[in-house]
Amino acid sequence: MNQDQLRNLLEQVRAGAVDVDAALSRVRHMPFEDLGFAKLDHHRELRHGMPEVVLAKGKTPEQVLTIARRLLTVSQNVLITRADAPTAARVQENLTEAEYFPLSGAIRFWRDKTLRGTGKIAVVSAGTSDIFVAEEAQVTAEVMGNEVEAIHDVGVAGIHRLLENSSRLMEARVVVVCAGMEGALPSVVGGLVSCPVIAVPTSVGYGASFHGVAALLGMLNSCASNVTVVNIDNGFGAGYVASLINRL
Amino acid sequence: MNQDQLRNLLEQVRAGAVDVDAALSRVRHMPFEDLGFAKLDHHRELRHGMPEVVLAKGKTPEQVLTIARRLLTVSQNVLITRADAPTAARVQENLTEAEYFPLSGAIRFWRDKTLRGTGKIAVVSAGTSDIFVAEEAQVTAEVMGNEVEAIHDVGVAGIHRLLENSSRLMEARVVVVCAGMEGALPSVVGGLVSCPVIAVPTSVGYGASFHGVAALLGMLNSCASNVTVVNIDNGFGAGYVASLINRL
Amino acid sequence: MNQDQLRNLLEQVRAGAVDVDAALSRVRHMPFEDLGFAKLDHHRELRHGMPEVVLAKGKTPEQVLTIARRLLTVSQNVLITRADAPTAARVQENLTEAEYFPLSGAIRFWRDKTLRGTGKIAVVSAGTSDIFVAEEAQVTAEVMGNEVEAIHDVGVAGIHRLLENSSRLMEARVVVVCAGMEGALPSVVGGLVSCPVIAVPTSVGYGASFHGVAALLGMLNSCASNVTVVNIDNGFGAGYVASLINRL
Amino acid sequence: MNQDQLRNLLEQVRAGAVDVDAALSRVRHMPFEDLGFAKLDHHRELRHGMPEVVLAKGKTPEQVLTIARRLLTVSQNVLITRADAPTAARVQENLTEAEYFPLSGAIRFWRDKTLRGTGKIAVVSAGTSDIFVAEEAQVTAEVMGNEVEAIHDVGVAGIHRLLENSSRLMEARVVVVCAGMEGALPSVVGGLVSCPVIAVPTSVGYGASFHGVAALLGMLNSCASNVTVVNIDNGFGAGYVASLINRL
Amino acid sequence: MNQDQLRNLLEQVRAGAVDVDAALSRVRHMPFEDLGFAKLDHHRELRHGMPEVVLAKGKTPEQVLTIARRLLTVSQNVLITRADAPTAARVQENLTEAEYFPLSGAIRFWRDKTLRGTGKIAVVSAGTSDIFVAEEAQVTAEVMGNEVEAIHDVGVAGIHRLLENSSRLMEARVVVVCAGMEGALPSVVGGLVSCPVIAVPTSVGYGASFHGVAALLGMLNSCASNVTVVNIDNGFGAGYVASLINRL
Amino acid sequence: MNQDQLRNLLEQVRAGAVDVDAALSRVRHMPFEDLGFAKLDHHRELRHGMPEVVLAKGKTPEQVLTIARRLLTVSQNVLITRADAPTAARVQENLTEAEYFPLSGAIRFWRDKTLRGTGKIAVVSAGTSDIFVAEEAQVTAEVMGNEVEAIHDVGVAGIHRLLENSSRLMEARVVVVCAGMEGALPSVVGGLVSCPVIAVPTSVGYGASFHGVAALLGMLNSCASNVTVVNIDNGFGAGYVASLINRL
Amino acid sequence: MNQDQLRNLLEQVRAGAVDVDAALSRVRHMPFEDLGFAKLDHHRELRHGMPEVVLAKGKTPEQVLTIARRLLTVSQNVLITRADAPTAARVQENLTEAEYFPLSGAIRFWRDKTLRGTGKIAVVSAGTSDIFVAEEAQVTAEVMGNEVEAIHDVGVAGIHRLLENSSRLMEARVVVVCAGMEGALPSVVGGLVSCPVIAVPTSVGYGASFHGVAALLGMLNSCASNVTVVNIDNGFGAGYVASLINRL
Amino acid sequence: MNQDQLRNLLEQVRAGAVDVDAALSRVRHMPFEDLGFAKLDHHRELRHGMPEVVLAKGKTPEQVLTIARRLLTVSQNVLITRADAPTAARVQENLTEAEYFPLSGAIRFWRDKTLRGTGKIAVVSAGTSDIFVAEEAQVTAEVMGNEVEAIHDVGVAGIHRLLENSSRLMEARVVVVCAGMEGALPSVVGGLVSCPVIAVPTSVGYGASFHGVAALLGMLNSCASNVTVVNIDNGFGAGYVASLINRL
Repeated sequence: MNQDQLRNLLEQVRAGAVDVDAALSRVRHMPFEDLGFAKLDHHRELRHGMPEVVLAKGKTPEQVLTIARRLLTVSQNVLITRADAPTAARVQENLTEAEYFPLSGAIRFWRDKTLRGTGKIAVVSAGTSDIFVAEEAQVTAEVMGNEVEAIHDVGVAGIHRLLENSSRLMEARVVVVCAGMEGALPSVVGGLVSCPVIAVPTSVGYGASFHGVAALLGMLNSCASNVTVVNIDNGFGAGYVASLINRL
Repeated sequence: MNQDQLRNLLEQVRAGAVDVDAALSRVRHMPFEDLGFAKLDHHRELRHGMPEVVLAKGKTPEQVLTIARRLLTVSQNVLITRADAPTAARVQENLTEAEYFPLSGAIRFWRDKTLRGTGKIAVVSAGTSDIFVAEEAQVTAEVMGNEVEAIHDVGVAGIHRLLENSSRLMEARVVVVCAGMEGALPSVVGGLVSCPVIAVPTSVGYGASFHGVAALLGMLNSCASNVTVVNIDNGFGAGYVASLINRL
Repeated sequence: MNQDQLRNLLEQVRAGAVDVDAALSRVRHMPFEDLGFAKLDHHRELRHGMPEVVLAKGKTPEQVLTIARRLLTVSQNVLITRADAPTAARVQENLTEAEYFPLSGAIRFWRDKTLRGTGKIAVVSAGTSDIFVAEEAQVTAEVMGNEVEAIHDVGVAGIHRLLENSSRLMEARVVVVCAGMEGALPSVVGGLVSCPVIAVPTSVGYGASFHGVAALLGMLNSCASNVTVVNIDNGFGAGYVASLINRL
Repeated sequence: MNQDQLRNLLEQVRAGAVDVDAALSRVRHMPFEDLGFAKLDHHRELRHGMPEVVLAKGKTPEQVLTIARRLLTVSQNVLITRADAPTAARVQENLTEAEYFPLSGAIRFWRDKTLRGTGKIAVVSAGTSDIFVAEEAQVTAEVMGNEVEAIHDVGVAGIHRLLENSSRLMEARVVVVCAGMEGALPSVVGGLVSCPVIAVPTSVGYGASFHGVAALLGMLNSCASNVTVVNIDNGFGAGYVASLINRL
Repeated sequence: MNQDQLRNLLEQVRAGAVDVDAALSRVRHMPFEDLGFAKLDHHRELRHGMPEVVLAKGKTPEQVLTIARRLLTVSQNVLITRADAPTAARVQENLTEAEYFPLSGAIRFWRDKTLRGTGKIAVVSAGTSDIFVAEEAQVTAEVMGNEVEAIHDVGVAGIHRLLENSSRLMEARVVVVCAGMEGALPSVVGGLVSCPVIAVPTSVGYGASFHGVAALLGMLNSCASNVTVVNIDNGFGAGYVASLINRL
Repeated sequence: MNQDQLRNLLEQVRAGAVDVDAALSRVRHMPFEDLGFAKLDHHRELRHGMPEVVLAKGKTPEQVLTIARRLLTVSQNVLITRADAPTAARVQENLTEAEYFPLSGAIRFWRDKTLRGTGKIAVVSAGTSDIFVAEEAQVTAEVMGNEVEAIHDVGVAGIHRLLENSSRLMEARVVVVCAGMEGALPSVVGGLVSCPVIAVPTSVGYGASFHGVAALLGMLNSCASNVTVVNIDNGFGAGYVASLINRL
Repeated sequence: MNQDQLRNLLEQVRAGAVDVDAALSRVRHMPFEDLGFAKLDHHRELRHGMPEVVLAKGKTPEQVLTIARRLLTVSQNVLITRADAPTAARVQENLTEAEYFPLSGAIRFWRDKTLRGTGKIAVVSAGTSDIFVAEEAQVTAEVMGNEVEAIHDVGVAGIHRLLENSSRLMEARVVVVCAGMEGALPSVVGGLVSCPVIAVPTSVGYGASFHGVAALLGMLNSCASNVTVVNIDNGFGAGYVASLINRL
Repeated sequence: MNQDQLRNLLEQVRAGAVDVDAALSRVRHMPFEDLGFAKLDHHRELRHGMPEVVLAKGKTPEQVLTIARRLLTVSQNVLITRADAPTAARVQENLTEAEYFPLSGAIRFWRDKTLRGTGKIAVVSAGTSDIFVAEEAQVTAEVMGNEVEAIHDVGVAGIHRLLENSSRLMEARVVVVCAGMEGALPSVVGGLVSCPVIAVPTSVGYGASFHGVAALLGMLNSCASNVTVVNIDNGFGAGYVASLINRL
C-alpha cells in the first residue's frame, strides 16, 4: 500500500464508503514498509547522491552490460567493481562513457562530477602491489563526488618517503591507507594526521601473510587511536565510508 | 500508536474532525511496529508457551533473585541458566519452588507441567563428563513441556552400550546428542534413527580438543544427513529447538 | 543368517535334527545385523520415503548416468547433487525425466510428487550469490515431498525487504536460511518466527570471510534460540533436516 | 633546536657572528622534528582539543593517581580507561572531580564541557552484556565534546526493538555499534542509517564466539557498505574516531 | 537375553513348548549385544590383561577413593591418572598399596607385576619440563606389564646427548618420545631406530608454541616414516599403545 | 675414514710406522659416522627388508623412470608414491613389472613377495572417497611383506555395515583406518578391536572439514585409547608403521 | 631543499637579501628529509654495497627487462627474484650477463664479485624439495659478496648425514637453514654451531604442514638459543641478513 | 671410551698386546661421542664465554637457589630468567651479588664484565608495556659482554620520537626491537638502519592481538629485508643472538 492507496482509503473512510473497522484492519495488515519506511529509503538515496554500484564478479559480460544499461537510465553515475578484461571490453564497446581501470577491475560512468565532499580524501598505498586496492578506493571516492589525493609506494621501511608527503596527508579531511604484508602503514599515518584513517589490509604478501590476515590483525591492533578497519582488499568500502565522512 | 489510537484517528477522519492529509501524515509517521508487529510478538508468546529464561552468569545473586521474583508474577515457568552455587542458595532460600541442578547450574521453576510436545525427546551424552551439558538440554526441554529420555555414557568407543539403547533412541521424535573430544556420537546416532538429531559439542577434552572445537568440527562434518549443530556447550539451545520440533 | 534361515534352524531344533548346543552356537555366532538390525534399516527406508541421493562430484558423467539408471529402477525419486554441466548433459540426453539446476548443480528425478510434509518450508537467501545453496535446499525439500516458499535477496542491510516477507516467513513450519559474508540473517529471521530455523553458512564473500567461516561462526553464536547450523554450503543437509521436521 | 634557537642562529648569520658553513652544519644536524614537526604535533593538540588519556591497566593505583594529578595541571579533561575498583577508590579519594564508571572501568575528569561535535553520536549495544564496551565509547565521546545518544539492548533477534529506535538512529551524525556473539547488529544499523557506522566487536559470548572473533569477522564482512571496524572491546577507539568524524 | 536364556528358549522349542514363530520373534527382537558381542568384550578384557583406569580430574578425592576401592576388588592393577595432591593424600591414607607420582598425577596400584610385553619400551623426553608426560607414559606401560627404559633430557639442540643413548634406543621394541616446543625429537629418534615411534607433543613452551600445537604439527609432519602421534600431553595413550605393540 | 682406512692405520701403529699420538689424533678427528654409525644404518636396512620408496610428485616422468631403473638394480621391491598418469605410462612402457594404482597414484614393483608380517593388517575406509588413501596404505603394507584385509565404505553413519565386518577386524594384528569429514571411524573401530589402530585423516569433505583438519582433530581426540594418528592423507606412513608393528 | 639550497639561503641571510623571519619560515617548512635524512640514505647505500633487487612476480617479462636494463646502468650487481621461465628467457635474450636459476626463479647479474663478507655463510637444506628456497638464499648471499657453502639433503631423520657435515658447518660464520615439514633442522644445527642461525621455513609438505606453518612454528619454538626466523620461503631475506651479519 | 682409553688401546696395538682386528672392532663399537664430539662441545663453551642460564619458571625458590649456588662455582656470570618475587628474595638473601630485575624477572650475577662485543647493541621498545621483554634482552646482552643502548617508548604512531633517536640507532651494530599490538616498529627501524634487526613480538595488547600473534605475523611479513624474528616475549633469545652477532 503506497501513499496514494492510503490516501484513497482515508478518503473512502471520510466519505463513509469504508467503515472504520474495515479500514483499521486494512491499515493494520498493510506492509508497514510501504509507509514511512519507503520514504526513509528514498531519503537515504537523496542524501547519498550515491552512484549505483554493481559487483561484476560472478556475472557474465552480457549480464553486466544489461544491468549497466538499465542503471544508466536512472542514475547519473554508475560504478561496476571487480570486472575482468572481457567484461570491460563488452561494456566499453557498447557504452562509450565507460572508463576501465584494469588494476582494480573498476568500470566507471561518471557523468555527474559535482563535488559533494567538503575537503580532500587522501588515498595512500604502502607498495606498488597495493595499488589495485587503492585504485578501487580512489575510483569510488571520486565517483561519489570527492577530490582524491593519491600517494603511492610510501611503505614504512622507507619512512622518509612517507614523511616527504606529510603535508599532503595533513591537508586531507580523511585518509584511506592500503597496505599488505605487515600492514604497519596506517599506524604511522595515523600518528601523523589528526583526522580519521580508514585502513584497508591487502592480500599482498606470501607465507605468513596468510592472504592479508597479518595486515588485517596489524591494523586492528593499531596503536594509533584514529584508525578503523575494513575487510581485506575492500577498497570500495574504504572509499565509500571516506566519502560519507567527507560529506559531513 | 496502538490499535485504539488508530481507530480513534480513523473515526475522526470519518467524522470530518481530521482531514485526510493530516491523517495520512500521522499514519505515515507512526512507528510501524505498533501495528502488526507488536501483535506478531504477542502471537509468538502465545504460541510458544515458553518459560521466561534468565542467564545468571554476570549477574549478582541478588539481581537474579529480583529478576526471578518479577518473572514469576507473569510466567508459570521460569528457567535460570548457568547459576553458581551461591546464586542458587540465595534463590532457593527465598523462592521455595526453585529446583537447582548443580552440574549445569540451571535453576527451574516448573509450575505448569502441561505436556506440549507430541512425543519424547531423547537427550544422549557420550561420557559422564558431558552430562553437565545434557542436563541443561533436559531441564530446558522438560520445562517447555516435553517428556525426556536421558541416555548417558554411550560414547562411540564402546559401541555396544549405544546399541543396547537403540530402541529407546528409535522411539524418540527428536534426539539431542552431547559429546566432547572427537564429537563422533551424533553421526552414529544419526545413522541409527530417522528423526532430526541436534548435536551439541561440549568443551570436554584437552590438548587438540581446543575447548570443544574438535567436537564442533566433527559434528558440522557429520556424514549423517539428519544432524544439525549448535554452539559449544549450548545445551539450552539444543533443548529449546528440540522442544520447538517436538511441538510440531 | 536371515529370517528364513533362522526359522529353518528353529524348525530343525524342534524336529530334533539339530541339538540345542549346536543351535545355540550357530545363533550366537550369526552376524547380529541379519536379525533385528536389517529390519530396522528397512523400517527407516519406509518411514523416510526418502529419494536416493548421489553425490556427482568426483564421479565421471558415465558413472553418474549408470548409477542414476540403476537407482531409478528401485526408487521413484532420485536426487543427484553437485553435478557439473557435462554430467548434466550426459544424464539429460539419456534420461528424459532429469531436471537440471545449474546454479546448485542438482539433477532431480521427481516422479512421485506426493506431499509428505505437513506445512510449508521457507527457504531464504541473503543475497543473490547465496541462491546456489538455497536452490540445493529447495530441490532437496521438494523431492522429499514438501511445499517450498523461496524468498531471495533479503539480506539484513536492507531490513525492510525482509520485513515485507514476514508474513510468508511466519506461515512456514520450518525455515532454512542461507547467508554468506557476516551470516547475520538467521538471527533476524529467528527473531521473527517461532519455528525451528536451520542456518546454512555459504562460502560467499572474500578476505576475512574465510570461505564461509565468518558466516558459520556468526550462525553458531546466534542470539536467536531457535537456530541450528549445518556445514558451509550444505544446502542439501538443510533441506533434508527441514523435510524430516516438516513430516513430524 | 626550537624556533627561538633557530631565529637566534639566523640572526647570528645575518650579523656575521656565525659563518655560513657553521650554520649549515648546525641546521643539517639539528633534530628535524624540532622544526615543523614539533609544530605539527602541537597543532594536533590544538585541533583535537583532545583530553589526555591514561590506560590504568598494568599500573598501580598510586601510579595512576600520580599521572592523573600531573595531567590535570596541563589538561582540562582527563580520561583514565580500564581502572579497577581499588584504583578508582584511590583516585576518587584524592581527586574529587573524578567520575567512575564501574562497568567499563573508566574514570573521567570532565571540566571543559564545550561541545565540539556538530551533531549527535549514537552509541548502540546489542545486549546488556555489551554495555561495558558501549559505556567506554560514550564516556570517551562525551569527554571529547560530543552529545551522545545511548541506545541499549536492541539486538537483531528482536528486530522491532531496534526499529522502534530508528528515528533516533537516523538523527545521529555517526553511529557506534557494540555487539558480541554473532556481531550482526552493525549490518542492520548500517542499512537503516546513511552515516558512517563504527562497529565494535565485544568479547561477549562463549564457545565458538572465541572471545569476540566471531563478532569481529561478522563485522569485517558486513554487507552494509558504511561500516568500519575496530578491535575487540575497543570502545575507547570507537568513541575517539566517532568524535573525530563528528567534528568534521 | 543371555546364553542361558537362549539355551532355555531353544530347549523349549525342542520340547515343543514354544512354537517356531514365537521363538523366531523372540530371537529377532533380542538385544543383539547379549550374544556374541558381550563375549567379544570379555575376550578383549582377557587379552588385554589391562588394568582398570580412572581419570581423577573432575572427581572429588572421595569419589576417586570410592571408585578405586571398588575396582581393586575386580582387578589386580588399577591406574588413576591426573590426580592432584589432596586426592593422592586421601587415597594413600586409605589404600596403602597406592604409589603416587606427583609430576604426572598418576596413582598406581601394581599388584600383578607379570611381564606381558616381549621386549623393552623406551620412553624418551626432550627436556626436564616434558617429564610430567613421559612419567605418565612410563607408569602406564609398567602397570600394563612392560619393562621401561626411561631416557630424559635428550633434546635435539644437544644432539650428542641423544646419540650417547642410541644403543639404548636401538634395543627398544617400541619408543615413546615426549617433546614440547618445536617437537623435533621424534623425527631424530625415528631416524635412529627401526621400530615404531609414538610421538607425544607436550604443552611445554610459550608464545607461538600455542600450548603444544607447534609440537603437534611438527610431529604430524615428521620426515621419519615410523612416527605416529597422539594428543597433546597424552602420555597415557602413548604408554597404552606402546604396551599393545609390545605384546605382539 | 672407513673400516679399511682404520685397519690400515692400526696396522701402521702395530708396525711402528705411525706413533700412538699421531694415531690418536687421527682417530679422534675422523668423522665418527664412518664407524659404527654406517653399520647401524646397514643394520636397519637389513632388518626392515624395506623396499626403496620414491615420491614421484615434483619429479618429471623421465626422472622417475631413471630413479626406478637404478633402484631396481639394488632392491627387489620398489614403491613409487603419488605418480600421475603420464608418469605411470612412462614407467610402465619401459618397466614391465610396474603395477599402477590410479586412485592413489602408487606404482609398485613387487618381485620379492616374502611374507614378513606375523598376521594380517586390516585397512579400513569410511567412504568410497577415502579409498585413494586406503589404497596407498594397502599397497605399502603389501610390498613390505604383509597380508592385507581391505574393508571399504563402513562409515559410522551406517554402523551395521561396520559391525558386519567386526570379525574380520578382530582377526587383524593391527588396523589402519582412513576417514575424512568428521573422522569418527577410528574411535568406533578402536572400541571393537584390542590391537593398535593407526588413524589416517583424509582431505575428503568440504566447508568446515578444512581439507582434513576436522578429521585430524577428531582422531587426535579419540576416546579409544588404542588409536594413534598420522598426517592428513598419509596412507604411506600408516602402511609403513603398520608393517613395522606386524613384524614384531 | 638540499644542502646547496640551504647554503644559498644562509648566504642570502648573511648578505641581508633575506630577512631572518623569512628565512626562519622557509627553514621551518622545508621538507626535513632533504637535510640529514637524505644523506643518511646515501650512507646506507654505500655501506651496503648492496645490489639492486627486483621482485619479478606480478610484472610482465617486458617490464622486468626494462627495469633490469635501467638498474644495470647504476649498479654493478642486480638480483631479480621469483621470475618464471618466459621472463628469464626474455631477459637472457637481451642481457647476456644474466644467470638464471630455475628452481628459485632468481636472475642474477654479478659483475662485481668483490668479497665483502669476512667468512663463509653455510646454506643448509633439509631435503631436496627445499633447495628452491636454499638456492635463493645462496644466490642472494653470493651477489652480496659472500662465499657460500651449500649443504643439501641433511634432514634430521638421517642425522648421520648432517653430522658428516658438522665441520663444514662449524667453519661458517653464519648459517642459513631451510626446512619444510616439521622444520626441525635449525634446532639441531643450532646445537652444533656457536654462530647465528637463520631459519627459513619452506612450504614443502602436505596436510597438516599448512603450507609451511608447521615448520614456521617449529622454528619459532626452537630450543636452540641461536636461532632467528624469517617468513615462509623467504630465502632472499635469509641470504640478505646473513650477508649483513657476515660483513660485521 | 675416552682419550686415555683410546691411547691405551693404541699402545697395546703397538706393543702387539692387542691385534689389529680386535682393536678395529673395539674402535668401531666405541660410542662416537666420546671422541671428537665432546671436544666440540668444550670448544663451544670456550668460544661463547657464555654465562650459565637457568629458567626459574616451574622451579621452587629453593631449587633455583641451589642451582645458582652450584653454577656460581663453575661460571663467573649466571643469568636466571623469569623468576618471581619470592624466588628473587630467596636468592638475594643468600647470594649478595644477585641483581633482580622485577619487570622481566631476571636475576643476574655479573662478576666478569669483560666486553666481548665489538660495538653497541641497541634494544628498542615500542611502548612502556613492552619494556618487560626489552629488559630481558638487555640484561642478557650485557651479561654476555655487550654495551647496550636502551631506547624505550618510540612506537610508530609517534614517529618523531623514533626519528629523534635515529642517530643512536644508526650507531648500533645490531638492533633488538620489542613491540606488541601491531608489531610495526621493526619494519620502521629496519628501514632506518643498515645492520641486522632482531624483532621480538610481545604479548602486549588485547582482543585481536591474540597474545602476540598479530605482532608476530607483522614482523614475519616485514617489508624491511634486514629483520629476523624470535618467539613471542623471547627477550632472552633476542639478546643472545644479538650478542653472537656483535662478537663477530
